[in-house]
Amino acid sequence: MITLAHGAGGRLTRRLVEERFLPRLGNAALDAMGDSAIVGDLAITTDSYVVAPRFFPGGDIGRLAVCGTVNDLVVAGAEPIALTAGFVLEEGLALDELERVVESMAAAAGEAGVKIVAGDTKVVQRGACDGLFVNTSGVGRVSRGFAPAPDGARAGDAVLLSGTIADHGMAVLACREGLPLEGDLASDVAPLGGLVRALREAGVDVHAMRDPTRGGLAGALIELAQAAGVRAVVEERAIPLRGSVRAACELTGIDPLHVANEGKLVAIVPGDQAETALEALRADPLGEDAAIVGRIEEGDPGLELLTALGGRRGVQMPLGEILPRIC
Amino acid sequence: MITLAHGAGGRLTRRLVEERFLPRLGNAALDAMGDSAIVGDLAITTDSYVVAPRFFPGGDIGRLAVCGTVNDLVVAGAEPIALTAGFVLEEGLALDELERVVESMAAAAGEAGVKIVAGDTKVVQRGACDGLFVNTSGVGRVSRGFAPAPDGARAGDAVLLSGTIADHGMAVLACREGLPLEGDLASDVAPLGGLVRALREAGVDVHAMRDPTRGGLAGALIELAQAAGVRAVVEERAIPLRGSVRAACELTGIDPLHVANEGKLVAIVPGDQAETALEALRADPLGEDAAIVGRIEEGDPGLELLTALGGRRGVQMPLGEILPRIC
Repeated sequence: MITLAHGAGGRLTRRLVEERFLPRLGNAALDAMGDSAIVGDLAITTDSYVVAPRFFPGGDIGRLAVCGTVNDLVVAGAEPIALTAGFVLEEGLALDELERVVESMAAAAGEAGVKIVAGDTKVVQRGACDGLFVNTSGVGRVSRGFAPAPDGARAGDAVLLSGTIADHGMAVLACREGLPLEGDLASDVAPLGGLVRALREAGVDVHAMRDPTRGGLAGALIELAQAAGVRAVVEERAIPLRGSVRAACELTGIDPLHVANEGKLVAIVPGDQAETALEALRADPLGEDAAIVGRIEEGDPGLELLTALGGRRGVQMPLGEILPRIC
Repeated sequence: MITLAHGAGGRLTRRLVEERFLPRLGNAALDAMGDSAIVGDLAITTDSYVVAPRFFPGGDIGRLAVCGTVNDLVVAGAEPIALTAGFVLEEGLALDELERVVESMAAAAGEAGVKIVAGDTKVVQRGACDGLFVNTSGVGRVSRGFAPAPDGARAGDAVLLSGTIADHGMAVLACREGLPLEGDLASDVAPLGGLVRALREAGVDVHAMRDPTRGGLAGALIELAQAAGVRAVVEERAIPLRGSVRAACELTGIDPLHVANEGKLVAIVPGDQAETALEALRADPLGEDAAIVGRIEEGDPGLELLTALGGRRGVQMPLGEILPRIC
């Protein structure tokens, strides 16, 4: 049976894909399991969005759907060409609400400099879907001479992060559960094209990039490390984290390393280009909290954390669900 | 409020798109409202599938999702490059059932000669979606020298149909409602690339093409006629219709002209190439019942039917729902 854990982006999601999908559908582009599939000079990606609630501090399902898919293209080193939008609507949804979502998609697409060129709308009867789901798919063109790869990380590389972690997941959770949290808890959902362009224009030879969404920073680094057969070593103290997010994580017992981000970039770059890359990221408003958070070493493929207390611990991908329906 | 009628592919769907989506998202590629958007030399399309039941005589949601999206590409004159698949699964769905759907997608993709290169899986809690929805998006390359256009129909053209109508919609309805119908009622769901290739290789200068899905043959012809500012005149007796489908339509009072097809092609070709086109279609197993069903004339944009009894009547797009969730 399918459980919520199968959709959480953890080990069960991966097992579902590896055991049930790949053996039947497998092909080189799909098997690479990058954020986008690379087919010739095209990058192609798809994501369905089922976030609950649909409107949350810092964003909504429409903004999320546009930024999420744009980000899957840009972290593959592609220039977005076009997006599609497929809606499944529940009978009884307020037209005003649909309009707000579409407005938000239009605004986010404008921000990202991409157009939504094709759409589809299905309606199901009351009770057959939870209000509104949207799928966005995206097509981009891969640029010559700038080709980060899912398995591109090499020993000696530095690990850069473009800003604070866990903002998106904790903002959605707090909003959904009515957690009594003060302050600036808000999703970071944003298009990452500017940050990627900054790295590129600074001449950084980015070996690998990810946007750490479902599965969080830990999930992204574990996947990058395993794909390349290397060890990512990250210093806990170096990871930017807002006070309000830290408080929400402590209250709920959730490890921010596993919480989804929707406007952050992880870049693996040659060690001697780390400072250049950091400077490039920080020059962009979305990257002002960017930091060098770790390095790539030889060793057992996976992620190791140097804790604030001076210890070292291996970090596993959670088996399944931490936060359901945060994207 | 959203009603089921907004998703039926009739006038309300069109109004929703024209009034709520286009003003916000509008751009040349989207505004053309073809089966695929044309962006440079790429054709791009998306469709979400919510058919109930998921397995029906002649097909299932997986085969439908692959064929539907492939067909949107090929009727735009494009060669499919790749598909994506985005799943929304309900907690509690049997893994076996998911596997059957994925198997079916793999088989249909093989038949259509296209690969599924990117995927996404979301899971929502019990009750938040009706089992399984799937979005497929597709990217194709538009060929030079073969460019049917949504507004390509011209007075003097012939209207060709590749086979019997209403098979898909009536098969799903009969299966869902348990109608006591005998015989060969089965969906026609199939990839149309071979039929399109046949027309192309026969050197037919196809002016416009559609796969008459939601909205049926009437919907497709009304949209083609309105886009080109011409009148489509169709002879009722010339339209191929299976006996079992006719019986099901009579029993339910549904006009087969408005019922969805998932493996049929409507082609508008120059009058003097109609016989060549017919021969090309009939040479393909999917086109053995192909027929010349009408012609394009000057006149009020729309569709006119020459009835079996010798009368003429204008055909309107239905306002809304005839058959919910047939795709």
